[in-house]
Amino acid sequence: MSWNTFGRVLRFTTWGESHGPALGAVVDGCPPGLTLSEEAIQPFLDARRPGTSKFTTQRKEPDQVRILSGTFEGRTTGTPISLMIENVDQRSKDYSDVAKAYRPGHADYAYDAKYGFRDYRGGGRSSARETAARVAAGAVARLVVPEVTLLAYVSEIGGDAIDHANFEAAEIGNNPFFCPDAAAAKRWETLVDDARLAGSSLGAVVECVATGVPAGWGAPIYAKLDADLAAAMMGINAAKGVEIGEGMAAARLRGEQNADPMRPGSDGPEFLANHAGGIAGGISTGQPVVCRVAFKPTSSILIAQETVTREGEATELATKGRHDPCVGIRGTPVVEAMMALVLADHKMLHRAQVGR
Amino acid sequence: MSWNTFGRVLRFTTWGESHGPALGAVVDGCPPGLTLSEEAIQPFLDARRPGTSKFTTQRKEPDQVRILSGTFEGRTTGTPISLMIENVDQRSKDYSDVAKAYRPGHADYAYDAKYGFRDYRGGGRSSARETAARVAAGAVARLVVPEVTLLAYVSEIGGDAIDHANFEAAEIGNNPFFCPDAAAAKRWETLVDDARLAGSSLGAVVECVATGVPAGWGAPIYAKLDADLAAAMMGINAAKGVEIGEGMAAARLRGEQNADPMRPGSDGPEFLANHAGGIAGGISTGQPVVCRVAFKPTSSILIAQETVTREGEATELATKGRHDPCVGIRGTPVVEAMMALVLADHKMLHRAQVGR
Amino acid sequence: MSWNTFGRVLRFTTWGESHGPALGAVVDGCPPGLTLSEEAIQPFLDARRPGTSKFTTQRKEPDQVRILSGTFEGRTTGTPISLMIENVDQRSKDYSDVAKAYRPGHADYAYDAKYGFRDYRGGGRSSARETAARVAAGAVARLVVPEVTLLAYVSEIGGDAIDHANFEAAEIGNNPFFCPDAAAAKRWETLVDDARLAGSSLGAVVECVATGVPAGWGAPIYAKLDADLAAAMMGINAAKGVEIGEGMAAARLRGEQNADPMRPGSDGPEFLANHAGGIAGGISTGQPVVCRVAFKPTSSILIAQETVTREGEATELATKGRHDPCVGIRGTPVVEAMMALVLADHKMLHRAQVGR
Amino acid sequence: MSWNTFGRVLRFTTWGESHGPALGAVVDGCPPGLTLSEEAIQPFLDARRPGTSKFTTQRKEPDQVRILSGTFEGRTTGTPISLMIENVDQRSKDYSDVAKAYRPGHADYAYDAKYGFRDYRGGGRSSARETAARVAAGAVARLVVPEVTLLAYVSEIGGDAIDHANFEAAEIGNNPFFCPDAAAAKRWETLVDDARLAGSSLGAVVECVATGVPAGWGAPIYAKLDADLAAAMMGINAAKGVEIGEGMAAARLRGEQNADPMRPGSDGPEFLANHAGGIAGGISTGQPVVCRVAFKPTSSILIAQETVTREGEATELATKGRHDPCVGIRGTPVVEAMMALVLADHKMLHRAQVGR
Repeated sequence: MSWNTFGRVLRFTTWGESHGPALGAVVDGCPPGLTLSEEAIQPFLDARRPGTSKFTTQRKEPDQVRILSGTFEGRTTGTPISLMIENVDQRSKDYSDVAKAYRPGHADYAYDAKYGFRDYRGGGRSSARETAARVAAGAVARLVVPEVTLLAYVSEIGGDAIDHANFEAAEIGNNPFFCPDAAAAKRWETLVDDARLAGSSLGAVVECVATGVPAGWGAPIYAKLDADLAAAMMGINAAKGVEIGEGMAAARLRGEQNADPMRPGSDGPEFLANHAGGIAGGISTGQPVVCRVAFKPTSSILIAQETVTREGEATELATKGRHDPCVGIRGTPVVEAMMALVLADHKMLHRAQVGR
Repeated sequence: MSWNTFGRVLRFTTWGESHGPALGAVVDGCPPGLTLSEEAIQPFLDARRPGTSKFTTQRKEPDQVRILSGTFEGRTTGTPISLMIENVDQRSKDYSDVAKAYRPGHADYAYDAKYGFRDYRGGGRSSARETAARVAAGAVARLVVPEVTLLAYVSEIGGDAIDHANFEAAEIGNNPFFCPDAAAAKRWETLVDDARLAGSSLGAVVECVATGVPAGWGAPIYAKLDADLAAAMMGINAAKGVEIGEGMAAARLRGEQNADPMRPGSDGPEFLANHAGGIAGGISTGQPVVCRVAFKPTSSILIAQETVTREGEATELATKGRHDPCVGIRGTPVVEAMMALVLADHKMLHRAQVGR
Repeated sequence: MSWNTFGRVLRFTTWGESHGPALGAVVDGCPPGLTLSEEAIQPFLDARRPGTSKFTTQRKEPDQVRILSGTFEGRTTGTPISLMIENVDQRSKDYSDVAKAYRPGHADYAYDAKYGFRDYRGGGRSSARETAARVAAGAVARLVVPEVTLLAYVSEIGGDAIDHANFEAAEIGNNPFFCPDAAAAKRWETLVDDARLAGSSLGAVVECVATGVPAGWGAPIYAKLDADLAAAMMGINAAKGVEIGEGMAAARLRGEQNADPMRPGSDGPEFLANHAGGIAGGISTGQPVVCRVAFKPTSSILIAQETVTREGEATELATKGRHDPCVGIRGTPVVEAMMALVLADHKMLHRAQVGR
Repeated sequence: MSWNTFGRVLRFTTWGESHGPALGAVVDGCPPGLTLSEEAIQPFLDARRPGTSKFTTQRKEPDQVRILSGTFEGRTTGTPISLMIENVDQRSKDYSDVAKAYRPGHADYAYDAKYGFRDYRGGGRSSARETAARVAAGAVARLVVPEVTLLAYVSEIGGDAIDHANFEAAEIGNNPFFCPDAAAAKRWETLVDDARLAGSSLGAVVECVATGVPAGWGAPIYAKLDADLAAAMMGINAAKGVEIGEGMAAARLRGEQNADPMRPGSDGPEFLANHAGGIAGGISTGQPVVCRVAFKPTSSILIAQETVTREGEATELATKGRHDPCVGIRGTPVVEAMMALVLADHKMLHRAQVGR
C-alpha cells in the first residue's frame, strides 16, 4: 500500500519524487488564525538544504517553498495548506546503471518486488528529498505548539559521541554538523572528510529534546506519544533505531537506577531525574521529551558492491558522482520537524478529549 | 485523546482495566474462512500468563479467552471477532497508598494530569494486563500470515546477553525466560532471583525474527513496515527503545560494513548480509525481519522512593506484595503478537494495492 | 472489507451477531469525568427493544447492558468503554431454509458473494440486532453534547404522513410508533396492523431534529457534518434515503424559495427560515439540525417470493414465525443515537482545531 | 476540524481556494502500472468546466490539469499522484460586499462562526471550484475499476423530470444539461433560461448508475457501500438529499412491492427487480448501483435578500455579475467522479480482505 499521510487530527500528506517537477505537502487540520508566510518556513528548509557544505550531498537545490492554499492575508484559515517545492537540480545524469541493477542498501529491489516497477531516477519516491516536504510541514506544526522549544542535534558520528558536559545550544548553528559540542565538531571535520575521501560513509545519532511540553499529552494505548514518535522517527530515511529517554540502555539498568523520583515543586511535582524521557504510559509528564534516532551510514558509496540486475544477473555497482558521506547530518532538521508534528497532533488530540 | 485501535485494514481495538470485570479485543477486518477456536488462541495467552514462575508477577490469572463473535462453525466469517478475558485474581488489596500518591516510573501522574482523574487500582488502563488482549488479537493475526514464522525471545537481561552461537530455538520453551541460549538461561536464574530478593528489578531486550515474509510488504512513506513496527513495539508497556536490523549500532558502522550485497539466487536475489533487518525503504526485502525492543526494569520495586501525593505533599512509596523482577520477560509473547499484527495488516494492505 | 468502527475522535466499534452469545460496542475517546452508569444507558435500549408491541418483531430480548470498562466510581475515565448486551432469545429455530436459499431483499446473497460463507442464523452480522450496540454507544455520546436536545420520531408510515401542525413532542412516548401526532398514530394502528395481518410490511420515514447545536461544528470538505450524518443514517439497516433540511424537495424549489435570510438577533444572526436544515458548507449554522431517513418496508414477509438456493436452483421463500411489519419504527432510537454520535464527534473535532 | 481526505485505502486529499493561485488533489494508494496521462484526465475536467454554456457560471477557467508526481514513463508507480489545476480567471472583482455581510444560503456565516475568520473571495474553500479536484481524482479512480461503466445525468430540473422511456445515453453529451432525454433537454432550455433571466435559480436531481460492479464490494457495518456513497454525495456542494435505489420512495412501498426476487441466471442469481439499487446490507449484489442526489437551487441569485453584516447589522445582499442558474448541472461530473472514487476504494478494500 501507499500511505503518505501522517497524523490523526493535524495530518499532512506528502507527494513528489526526486526527479519529478516538484514535491510538496498538504497540511490539514491546522488551527485558524496563525501567522504563516513562506518566509517563516524557509529557514527550516534552508537548514535541511543540500549542498551547503562538503559534508553533505552536492546537489544544489534552492528548496524555495510556495504556499498554494490555506492562508489569507498572512494567516491560516483552518483549511488545507498546500506547500510546494520545485525540483531544480535534477542533473541530467545517466541512470542506466541504476535502472538495470539494484543498489544494495537502497529500496530499489523492494520497490520492484512490491510494484513490479519503479521510478529509478534518484530513488524516486524513496529519495531523501521527500523529507523537504516534512520539514516544510513541520514549520507549520511549530506554530501550533508555541509553548514548546525544540532542539535537535547530532550527538554521535561514526561512533564518536559528543560530551554532554560541553553542550552549548548556540554551537549547533556554528558548524556543518548540527553539533552542540565545539570540540566534537572539530574532530568530526576530519572524521567525515576522511570517510568522504575514502568514498565511504558514516552513521550518526540525532538527539531531539522538546522542552515546555505540559503533562498530559499522549494517548493510551496505540497512539502513545512515544509510539507515535517512534513511528515518526523510524519512518525517516536511513533510520534504524529509536530511543526514548534511556532507550536501549534502560535494559541494562536496575529499577532503582532507572527511577524518576518526584518532590513537591512550585508547579506540580518536580522530577529528580528523567530516565523516562518525559513520557510515562504514553503520556507526557511535563519533563523534557527526549528522543534519539540512529541513522545508518549512507548506502550510496563509491566502493563497488556485489548486486544483481533486474534480470537476475550478477553485477557490481558503485555510486558515481555526488555522494553524501553522512546522511544523518541532514536528518537533524527532519527529526525536529517530525517531533513538532507529533507534538502538535497530540496537543490537538488532547484538547479534543479534555477540552483544555 | 484515547486511541485504542491499532492497524489500518486489519484493525484491533482493546479495552479493559486491570481491576475491572474483564478485558478484551475486537479484531476487525480479518479474512473469512480461517479456522479459529478458543483452543487456538489459548496457548499464546498461556505463554504470557502471570504466575508461572517465581521470575514473574505472582498474580494468578487463568486468562481464559472467549470468542463472542465473528466465527461460525469454527471459521472466521469476515466480521468483527470479539475476544474477552475475565479478570479473576483482582486481589482485594489496599490501594489507598497508590490512590493518594504517584508511583514513580508509572503513568499515575501523567493520567491524573491528562484526565484529572484515574482508576488507581493496579494501574487501571495502563496496566500490563492490557497486553493479554494484544496477545489474543495476535493469535488471530497469525492465521492471516501462515507463510511467516515468528520467533521472539529474550536476548539480554540486566546487561547479560545471550551468545548467538548458542542459539537453539527449541530452548526457548525450556526455561522461564524465553531464552534460546541454555547457558544464559542458567545464569539468568541467579541474576533475576538476586534482583527479586533484593526487591529490585532488571531491564531486558527482546528480539523478534520473522522469516518467510516475502519481498514487497510495507508502504512508503508514513506506514513503512519499520515505522509501524516501531510504533507497535514502543507502545508496549515499559518499552524504551526499538531497533530494526543493526539498530542503534548502525550509527557506528561504515557504509561498506553495513552493506547488504546481493547475488543471484534461485528465487530472486540472495542477500549476503542482513544489516537492514529485512526492510529497505519501509518495504520488506524477503530477508528475515529482525526487530529488538528494550524494556526498562520494572518500576514497581520494594525499595522506597521519593514521590508526591495528589495534594502535592512529599511522601515515600515502596511496592508491597506481588512484584515482577523483570517485566521484559513477559513482554516476549507481546512482541511476537505485535509483529504478527503488523505483518498481517501489511500483507492485506499490499494485496489491496497490488492485487496479489 | 469489514469496517465496524465509526467516528473520527469519538469512535465506537461494534461487534456481535444475531445468534451469538452477545453483542457490544467499544466507545473510545470519550471525555473523562462524565457520570455514566448502566441505568443511564438502559432507557435508550428499552426504547429500541423488540417485542414491546404487536407492531414490532416478537423476539423477546431484555437487552440489559453491562459496562465492562472505562468507568471508575461512576464516572468515565477517558479510556475505552466496553458495553455488552447478551443475546437471550435466540429461539432454536429451524434455519435450514435460510441456510439453503437467499432471502430476497436481505444481505444473504451479498455476504456469500463477498465472503464465500456466512452465519445464516437470523442474518448474522447484518441483523438489525446490531443496532442495539449503536443505541448503547449513542447513550454515551449524549453525555458529550449536553447542550443538544435530540428528538427523533416517525413522520410517515406507508405513505401516510404526520401533520406538523399536530406536532406534540410529548406524544412520541405515548404510542408504539414514536409518533408526535396523536391522530396519525391512531390511523397507523390500523394501517400497520392490516399490513401485519396480510403478512406484508410498510416503509417509514424517521425525522430527527437536534436543537442547541452551536454554529461552527463540522468540517470542510469530506467530513462535512451533513456528509457524516448521511453516512451514519444510510448505514442503518433498511435505510434507503437521507435528507438534510429540505432534502430531495430542495430540487424543486427556486433560489428565492429556498433562501434562509438572516436578521440581527440577540445572539448572532437570527434566521428567518431553515431550508438548509441547520448546515451550510458542511458546518452547523446554529439553527436546528434536521435530518430525515427513509426506511424500506421489512424484507422478511410472509408472502412467498422467488429466489435461488446456494446451489443456484430456483425455489420460493416466505418468512415464517416472527415478523416485523414496519422496521422503520424501531429505527427511530437508532437514528437518534447516530445523530448523537456524529454531533459528539464533531464537537470534539471542532475543539481540537479551534480550542473552544 | 478540517478534513480534506476521502477514502480508506484509495485516498485523496484536496486543497485550494476559489481565488488562490491553484487547487489540487493528492491521490494516494493507487495501484501501480496503470496508464495515466494528463490527456486522460482532461476530458472529465472539461465536462465540469464552467463557462461552456449560458446555463452555467460564466467564469472562464481552462482547468488544465498537471500531474506533478506518481507516474513514470506514462504509468502510475503506486506512489502519491499530485494533480494541480491553476486558477486563471480570478476576476479582480469587488468583494467588499461579501467581506462585510453573510450571503444567505452560503457557508459564510458558518465559516466565520467556526474559524473566526474566512477567505471571503468567491467562497474560499467552500467554493464549488474545489470539485474540480474531485473530478481529477475521480479520473484516476476510474482506472482502478475498468470493469465498471459509470453514467451520471440530470434526471430532473426545477421539478421537471425526464421520462425514463426516452432514455438515450448518447443524448447526455448532446445538450448542456447532461440530459439523457432529448425532449426534456428541450424543455429545460426554456426553463433554465427563464430562471436565469429572472435572476433566480433552480434545483436539480442527478442520477448515477454504475454497471459492472460485481457482487461482494462493500463492508459491514460502518463502511457500507451505500453509507460511503451517501457521505460522498452529501459532501458535494449544494447536495441536500441522497437516495439509493428506490430511495425516499421506498418508505411508501409495501414489502412485496419493494422485493427483488431472484431466479437462477447464467452467472449467479438473476434479479427480477432492482429496488435495492444494487446494494444489500452495505454490499453490492451485482446489479447496477443506482444513486440519486438532490441539489438545491444556487444560493447566489440576483434577487436581494435580508442578511446581517459581520458586525451584526441588518443589510441586504444580491449577487452581482456572474450567476449560475442551476448548480446541479455541473454537479453531474462530480457525482460520477465520487461514485468512481467510492467504488475503487471498495474494490481495493474487498481485495485486501478476501484476496480476490
